[in-house]
Amino acid sequence: MESELISWLRARLPRHPQLLLGVGDDAAVLRLAQRADCVLTTDMLNDGVDFRVADDDPRRIGRKALAVNLSDLAAMAARPLAALVSLALPRHNSLKLALQLFEGLLPLAEEFGVCIAGGDTNVWDGPLAISITAIGETTDRGPLTRSGASPGEAIIVTGNFGGSILGHQFDFRPRVNEALRIYQRYPLTAGIDVSDGLSLDLAKLCERSGCGALLNLDSIPISAAARQLAERAGDDQSALDHALGDGEDFELILTLPADELPAMLADPALANIPLTCIGRFVSQPGLWTEDSVGTRQPIMPRGWEHRGI
Amino acid sequence: MESELISWLRARLPRHPQLLLGVGDDAAVLRLAQRADCVLTTDMLNDGVDFRVADDDPRRIGRKALAVNLSDLAAMAARPLAALVSLALPRHNSLKLALQLFEGLLPLAEEFGVCIAGGDTNVWDGPLAISITAIGETTDRGPLTRSGASPGEAIIVTGNFGGSILGHQFDFRPRVNEALRIYQRYPLTAGIDVSDGLSLDLAKLCERSGCGALLNLDSIPISAAARQLAERAGDDQSALDHALGDGEDFELILTLPADELPAMLADPALANIPLTCIGRFVSQPGLWTEDSVGTRQPIMPRGWEHRGI
Repeated sequence: MESELISWLRARLPRHPQLLLGVGDDAAVLRLAQRADCVLTTDMLNDGVDFRVADDDPRRIGRKALAVNLSDLAAMAARPLAALVSLALPRHNSLKLALQLFEGLLPLAEEFGVCIAGGDTNVWDGPLAISITAIGETTDRGPLTRSGASPGEAIIVTGNFGGSILGHQFDFRPRVNEALRIYQRYPLTAGIDVSDGLSLDLAKLCERSGCGALLNLDSIPISAAARQLAERAGDDQSALDHALGDGEDFELILTLPADELPAMLADPALANIPLTCIGRFVSQPGLWTEDSVGTRQPIMPRGWEHRGI
Repeated sequence: MESELISWLRARLPRHPQLLLGVGDDAAVLRLAQRADCVLTTDMLNDGVDFRVADDDPRRIGRKALAVNLSDLAAMAARPLAALVSLALPRHNSLKLALQLFEGLLPLAEEFGVCIAGGDTNVWDGPLAISITAIGETTDRGPLTRSGASPGEAIIVTGNFGGSILGHQFDFRPRVNEALRIYQRYPLTAGIDVSDGLSLDLAKLCERSGCGALLNLDSIPISAAARQLAERAGDDQSALDHALGDGEDFELILTLPADELPAMLADPALANIPLTCIGRFVSQPGLWTEDSVGTRQPIMPRGWEHRGI
């Protein structure tokens, strides 16, 4: 089956100027831009944890498996180049399933200039597992890490949060181009993508940067889906709770010196990117909110403590 | 659990001079040598297909999962740099299993100067799956591909073949250093590692190079394990059959101009590498042997038509 899949893929894969050798040898060979470093990330999605193959369209599953990796490259402000796609396929209709997964991921790959440089296809008695490694390259600005934020700096987010389970978890568009454009124009100091939950991922960034965050809860951009969930009978969380803890938003948390903030928010070149300042970093570790008289209350980071673990 | 695993790993991972950013951010950042290209390969091993977690020591499974990837880098004559390790772990004793897998693969990584640059750890209701991506860099000679062999050139192999199921499939040492040393001294034209079977992988190399191979069957280096299997009651294959078709030898098939062959085989700098010339390339596609009067007989390529597919 793998040879059929490779033939099908080869006929569909466009040429990539940096892929010197692609699918069909022992390994792929990729040429990075001069002075660029290689940015590497990998995510494995598993049936019953990250999706349900019985309920979800395999094309959406395949797309998501690539998109979550591109979101990680976005968080590093790296330019995506290539992906390696490995599949563990259940025996029943395995070729059909593999083709559907690729039908979902190939358009996204093409949209972001990502070549499929290789992979491994296996059939077994277990459920579907998809493991994708994405390879990117740094720009002249270098990589954006989690550890560069400092007290006083502004906390910016792209997009809206919460309720991704209603569809956004599959259909999100990774913020790759947004990250590259913003970082080209402003001296961002740190970045992370929100996979596990806005509050939890912000807490991770704070921990790595050795600081805390003071949030203006009124400014958190709440998605329509979060409001929809909160209004459901039996749902005991507010829309804000959903925004802070649902996860799989795949939006970015970005940080920059406070004096750059007004220019960034007013920049016409970024006008079509939804950017919101949700607070600032403080030296006190943890996540905080302040009441009207300036008393700090802690916010407990919540979210998906790594998928299933 | 992933955070425990990451803490354990971080304490054990040595620094790597080319890893600018390792485990713990959204992605890793790797600096290649100047003018080097990035060589990428990935292999996924699955319970019940590539190993049996109920029977095989998880340390050997973890080691094998990395070793098969390093063997692919060896086939490209690439210098190994990094690996990303993704796991889908069954729920029972998942942390213990993950640690054992890493205990098996870390010494191999260290031996070959490979840093663990990242990964993804998941627990699910399925069996164990291990997906590793290995990253290497080309040397000044460039990558060794499958497509460079020409009629008249010599076919060289490292090591012995057959019977890997008796242990070699787990315990083999990927021929990384051998490939680098040989390629540094001789103008190899093509290379492939033998994972599916000597005859099948040679046939793949021939197909990609647009030629055929004339083998001297008497010269095929047969392993002691292949002979042992052939002597077993009920085994209907000769030791040579095992050598040609068993697979998982993870030896290299290398090709070079015939006039370089005498020097290579007599080279004291390569004296500790077991090298055997098993034939030469011909323009007639396919694998062939010749009888004493020069009549060609076809050899059917046999082997493991990709694990389980």
